[in-house]
Amino acid sequence: MRLPLFVAAIAVSVGSVAADPLPSWHEGDAKSRILEFVEDVSDPASANYVTPADRVAVFDNDGTLWSEKPVYFQLLYALDRLAEKAKDDPSILTSDVLKAAASGDMEAVAKSGEEGLLEIVMVSHSGLSVPEFQADVADWLKTAKHPTSELAYTEMTYQPMLELLRYLRDQGFETYLVSGGGIHFMRAFVEDAYGVPPENVIGSAGKTRYEVVDGVPTILKDPGIAFVDDRAGKPVGIDSKIGKRPIFVGGNSDGDFEMLEWATAGDGPRLGLIVHHTDGEREWAYDRDSHVGKLVRGLDEADTRDWLIVDMAEDWKRVWSGVSD
Amino acid sequence: MRLPLFVAAIAVSVGSVAADPLPSWHEGDAKSRILEFVEDVSDPASANYVTPADRVAVFDNDGTLWSEKPVYFQLLYALDRLAEKAKDDPSILTSDVLKAAASGDMEAVAKSGEEGLLEIVMVSHSGLSVPEFQADVADWLKTAKHPTSELAYTEMTYQPMLELLRYLRDQGFETYLVSGGGIHFMRAFVEDAYGVPPENVIGSAGKTRYEVVDGVPTILKDPGIAFVDDRAGKPVGIDSKIGKRPIFVGGNSDGDFEMLEWATAGDGPRLGLIVHHTDGEREWAYDRDSHVGKLVRGLDEADTRDWLIVDMAEDWKRVWSGVSD
Repeated sequence: MRLPLFVAAIAVSVGSVAADPLPSWHEGDAKSRILEFVEDVSDPASANYVTPADRVAVFDNDGTLWSEKPVYFQLLYALDRLAEKAKDDPSILTSDVLKAAASGDMEAVAKSGEEGLLEIVMVSHSGLSVPEFQADVADWLKTAKHPTSELAYTEMTYQPMLELLRYLRDQGFETYLVSGGGIHFMRAFVEDAYGVPPENVIGSAGKTRYEVVDGVPTILKDPGIAFVDDRAGKPVGIDSKIGKRPIFVGGNSDGDFEMLEWATAGDGPRLGLIVHHTDGEREWAYDRDSHVGKLVRGLDEADTRDWLIVDMAEDWKRVWSGVSD
Repeated sequence: MRLPLFVAAIAVSVGSVAADPLPSWHEGDAKSRILEFVEDVSDPASANYVTPADRVAVFDNDGTLWSEKPVYFQLLYALDRLAEKAKDDPSILTSDVLKAAASGDMEAVAKSGEEGLLEIVMVSHSGLSVPEFQADVADWLKTAKHPTSELAYTEMTYQPMLELLRYLRDQGFETYLVSGGGIHFMRAFVEDAYGVPPENVIGSAGKTRYEVVDGVPTILKDPGIAFVDDRAGKPVGIDSKIGKRPIFVGGNSDGDFEMLEWATAGDGPRLGLIVHHTDGEREWAYDRDSHVGKLVRGLDEADTRDWLIVDMAEDWKRVWSGVSD
């Protein structure tokens, strides 16, 4: 059937205005591939149709949904919180790395390696109930500013990824976070920031304990690590919490490699996406040699595995949600 | 306003037919209290209105949603599976309790206590990938029969509780399982049996490991316990997986005590429910002295804590889903 010209023109114009769910993405291969994949799996007439219950999308957080430089924002929170705790009770600073951290000696903290960081996180994150801890994180996020951008941390979420999350949900996907960051830290802000509810947060977890404290049933954050949701821990965490194999997966570092590998090796249509930090002007440019967000295998194997590399500088019109074009 | 009699009659008749979401519950205090609670929290005009995102309902499984006598059904599966595995490879029977279990010597198994049971579950449940294991459980459930009722195990789910689960979901609740049973065991059947999807299953968990096996990304079940979702572990598991405090909670034994205590101590309207096994004729009658489903504190404190005791013999017209009135 041929439509009268004016009808076709209206259809195209209404269609294109109403239909761009990813306005902060430049037209190009990355955007097209995302749109085509999502349309394909949500179209009941498509051979690749996936029932809504199986439209599971998982995303790493640090470096994928918000920035992670100079270090993970959770570590910056941990340092602030440790300094504050030490003011009340200096005896908690039982090691050199804790003393260095509380005094803001970032060089010494950096040198202490993973073990030192873990110690800082454990000491700073324990001793509160879960609601108290989450309120403390929320308070910190309200006032703390990033050391170089001077933005609030939640202004450093990626606008194009916020659009992608919303688009996926609008198309019947369930969106989850799968992060090396702590679940209670994330739950303090991800519902507001990403529209991801607490029950869709998978992350690393400190030990917690149930206890009736002065007659009040309480869940307390203890020192000690219950689960590390990184690398091979990510598929394990997804299986444990969701029990389904995601069909859409987004990450940015080799910490996401196993999750990408497992999810995209399943039957049927799958899309694996890697955010590549190529934009030294608007954000940071880093990959193979970075101490956070190190990306080597992902870059080397994306092509053969048919993963989509998103080039931040080329593919995104806008980076941070808190900074307009 | 007074309605003409025939209009009122129609309204009552249509209303009562269409409106009874719990047909297998006798009219009485238990049923009324459930209906009133659910109506109250889902009515936007009520002072006790709860937004759908916070209408979280959690249920124990063994003894709350299906039977648990003579022992947890998962243990019966473990025994069958162990005997089968031992046929292929008798060398897996490395201890007396494993040998007893594989030969069906239930008395020796019972005497081995919790440690023995754990050993049986670990050896029988490990060595498969998660999908293989779940397929094996599903196969077993298709053919296995209960030793005394001779019903399939999924026919021994409680019809009144199935109605309650459906009713809660119809009223905007999200329903979760919070069971001492294994997550992968439950995921093999709970979506069909209860309408509870895999992502809403919280349970005990064996260790799992991600590995690429002959080129295939796989999640494997290892021996060893990752999490025990019982007693004080239940609130911890709920916090970890859901991150919200449930407002409706159902259990049947002291293994559910802490979950009931924590959930019902929250602000606002809460309903805690205990299924009391009082029906020796249609099911089993047990509480304080039972080795499974032992219920002491729950009975002693239900009154002061305002928990609802459901009397199976008195409150339920029908017990098992597989047996009509």
